[in-house]
Formats: sequence, structure tokens, C-alpha cells
Amino acid sequence: MDSKKTAPIGVFDSGVGGLTVAREIVRQLPGEDIVYFGDTARVPYGSKSKDNIIRFSRQIIRFLQTKQVKAIVIACNTASALALDTVRDEFDVPIIGVVIPGARAAVEATANSHVGIVGTDATVHSHVYTKVITGMNPEIAVIEKACPLFVPLVEEGFKNHHVTEEIIDFYLSSMKETPIDTMILGCTHYPLLRSKIRAYMGDEIQIVNPAYETAMDLKHLLERENMVNDVADGVLGHCEFYVSDAADKFKEFANSVMPYDISTTKVINIEEY
Amino acid sequence: MDSKKTAPIGVFDSGVGGLTVAREIVRQLPGEDIVYFGDTARVPYGSKSKDNIIRFSRQIIRFLQTKQVKAIVIACNTASALALDTVRDEFDVPIIGVVIPGARAAVEATANSHVGIVGTDATVHSHVYTKVITGMNPEIAVIEKACPLFVPLVEEGFKNHHVTEEIIDFYLSSMKETPIDTMILGCTHYPLLRSKIRAYMGDEIQIVNPAYETAMDLKHLLERENMVNDVADGVLGHCEFYVSDAADKFKEFANSVMPYDISTTKVINIEEY
Repeated sequence: MDSKKTAPIGVFDSGVGGLTVAREIVRQLPGEDIVYFGDTARVPYGSKSKDNIIRFSRQIIRFLQTKQVKAIVIACNTASALALDTVRDEFDVPIIGVVIPGARAAVEATANSHVGIVGTDATVHSHVYTKVITGMNPEIAVIEKACPLFVPLVEEGFKNHHVTEEIIDFYLSSMKETPIDTMILGCTHYPLLRSKIRAYMGDEIQIVNPAYETAMDLKHLLERENMVNDVADGVLGHCEFYVSDAADKFKEFANSVMPYDISTTKVINIEEY
Repeated sequence: MDSKKTAPIGVFDSGVGGLTVAREIVRQLPGEDIVYFGDTARVPYGSKSKDNIIRFSRQIIRFLQTKQVKAIVIACNTASALALDTVRDEFDVPIIGVVIPGARAAVEATANSHVGIVGTDATVHSHVYTKVITGMNPEIAVIEKACPLFVPLVEEGFKNHHVTEEIIDFYLSSMKETPIDTMILGCTHYPLLRSKIRAYMGDEIQIVNPAYETAMDLKHLLERENMVNDVADGVLGHCEFYVSDAADKFKEFANSVMPYDISTTKVINIEEY
């Protein structure tokens, strides 16, 4: 049981976006160790078939199991939507995704039953959030909008640049005219634009960050299963980072997201798992 | 011999970018039929291994051969760099890429032996243009700059938006301070930003568009091999478009690039070839 408590949390994504989820886990569970894997050789997942996404997820889970993880977070909207149900049945480790926690928080938050979703082309066209939300409450109207420039703007360091405000206006002006009172940031990169999106949409809109909700769900899971790492207050966990390609670029971006500097990122051949 | 003359030209790319090459072929060889394939299911090629790029290129060439093409243009910088030499030896059809025609034009154009290259992260990190240019003339100094936001800006319809001017300034201000007198648009999307790039860099810089040079090379090849389609002046060739995914999105973008409206785009399963 003690070895379960001290074991790390596995977190994976198609690339760097899932770092916003890792960051929330560090904030809410600072004593936990994390092993992060970013599948930078096969990014983006949005254009891949369901069969491939399941195959990639199995490989990554097998890799994370070599690190004796006690729980796994799929910090990727596409893999959460397409692979979670399958891999949950196949592996003997608790696995959670980002879509259900985000959808549930929006269902609880909306007062007028109108929810907006912003995400990548792939997430919006999959209608995954709409399906999960209307499955929880069929009365809720969901308005979706793809914002494909948000990810490259964030990755290129434009998150505080004023052109980003103009591009937010370009994508969100139509959604601002709808009656939504709640908006889900349905892409793991978008929390990095949250303050600009909030400023544009106004304080009356509740912004749901699935990364935050997922870290909360993970915390409840660890408590329920008696797997919380019992470290003394102020003792911080350790994070290890692995990628399938381009470690330097990953490290540079990770250092702009995580609350501390990342010393090393290791490249592994994920096709071997 | 006549069947060779009336046969179509095959053109392929990882996605929509190669349409700028198809457009130049239509301009310079208006009587030729074209079969275009965009590998939209597996885009982008830049993050894939050389082995995979060669495998993808072989599949696409086998598909294009089912359309009895008389020549093939690899309208993709990554596939031109990684697969051209291999597939040229394997297939009994003339194949040309975009890198060599672009590099040769720059070598001929520069008066002060300083050439700038702009491209995607993948193209710049491969240093393919630098290798080809210095192979042609070791005296030439090459300055490279990756501009990762240019492709999504073009694909999202921002090519005439003023934020694009600010992003051009962000990427190209350092290159403007170098002594280059010639710049290669080393990504097939960038000709769609040519007028803005030219306005920013100034008239003293020669802008080389590899799409234009490649269409010229193709014209010379057809003339040399006596394969030009002898149609009457004013008779226009026909273009067919095939993709591996998301035909509607492709068609919408193609209609903004090509000189006439595209009626249909067919999806094929490229893995079967």
C-alpha cells in the first residue's frame, strides 16, 4: 500500500498541451511525483483514426507502467474522447480523461442551460463535448466554435501579444452574441489564453478549465483509493518528462508553462512499447 | 507517344500547400490536365521520419500511376527533401521536387552571395535548402528563419488581415537586418503571403517562389521529352483533386487558391496503395 502512495502519476498528451493539466496537478497535489509523456513525433492526434489513437494510447500506457505509475491522466481531448473507454477496460491502473470532468463542471455551472465550447477543429468536429454534456442533461444547448489559430499562437509565444486579442475577437464575436453563460476551454492549450478570453467574453461568463477539473477528479480518486503521497507539508514532488521527438523544443515550451525550470527531457522510441 | 502527350501531370503534397504549385502549372502549362493528391489524413509531414515519408510518397506515386500520369511533381518541401532521390530510382516516370528548382533560382539571382530562407520549423531544421545551395555554390551564405504561424494564418484566411503584417514583422525583422539580397519562400503556403512579404522586405530583395521555378522546370522537362499536350490555344486542361481525409475543408481552401472553382474532391484510402 505504501508503494502505491509513493508511486508517481502518469500524464500523457499528443504534445505540449497536456502540460497545463500537469501544472494543475502540481498546484493541487504538490507532493505527488509526475511522469509526463508528450507524443511529439505523432502530434497532432486530431487528424488520426480512432484505431491509431487507441494503439498510441496503449503504447504510452505500457511505457508509463514501466515507471510504476499509480494512476494515469489522459491530458488530451482527442485521446480522452476516442481511447479512454477502451484502455480503461484493458489496463489494471485507474485512468481518467479531461473531457468528462470538463463537461460535468459546465453542466453544474450553467444557470440558463446554454454552454459554449471552444477547441481545435478536430475536437469541435468530433462533437465530443456536446455528446457528453447532452448525455448528462439533454436540456442543455451547446454552441461549438473551432479556433485553429489559438494553438500556434500559444506555441509561438504570442499569448500576451495584442494580435492575439484581435484573433480572439475574430473567432469569438459570434459566440459573444449567443446566450451562453458558461464556456469550456476544450483544448489543453487554451488555459494559457484564459485571461485574454475572460477579458473578451466578460465576467458574467463562467470559464471552465477542464485541466483544473481533471486535477480535482484525480485528487478525489487518490483520496478514495488511499493513494495520496503522505509527504510533509512543503515537500514538493518530482516531475520527469519524456517525449517521442524534439526534446529541446518541448523543454523550452515546458519552461514557459510549468512553475519551475525543467532540467531534462528524454526522448524515447514509443513504437517499442 | 500521343497518349503520353495527353496524359495528366501528377502533383502531390502533404495537404493544401501544394496547390500553389498546381496553380503555377495551370498558369504556365494551361493545356495540361492535372491530378492532385493532398495527404490531408497524414499532414504534417514535417514531424514524420524519413522512412515514413518515403513510404507515403511510394503509396501516392502508385495511386497517381493508376491515373496514367506522364510526370510527377512532389509539391512538398519535406517529401522533396527526404524521398525524391529514392523514388526517382524506383519508378519509371519522371519525378521532380520543389527544393532544387527553388535553390537553383536563388543561386542564380543573388549578386552578393547572401540568401535568406523562410519555411516551416521542419524545413528550416532539416537545413535542406542550405545543403542544396552550398552544394551548388559553397561561397553563398544562407540565413534561415522558421515562421510557424504563416501556415495557420494562411489556412485560416488571414492572408489579407493586418495582424499578418505584425506577425511578418515579428519573424522577419532580424532577417531584414542581414545583407541578404535574395529570399526563398521555402514553404508552399508562403507564396500566398508574397505581396505582404515583398512589401515588408522591400523591392531590393528578390523573392524566389519555388512553385514558379518548379512549374518552369516541368515545362522544360515536357518539352525535352516531347510530352507537351498539343491542345489548341485557349483550350484549358482539367484538374482532378483527391485527398486522404476532410474533402470539404480541402475544397474550400482550394477554391481560394486556384483560378477557377473546384467542383469535386474525392477521398481515397491511400493506405491501400
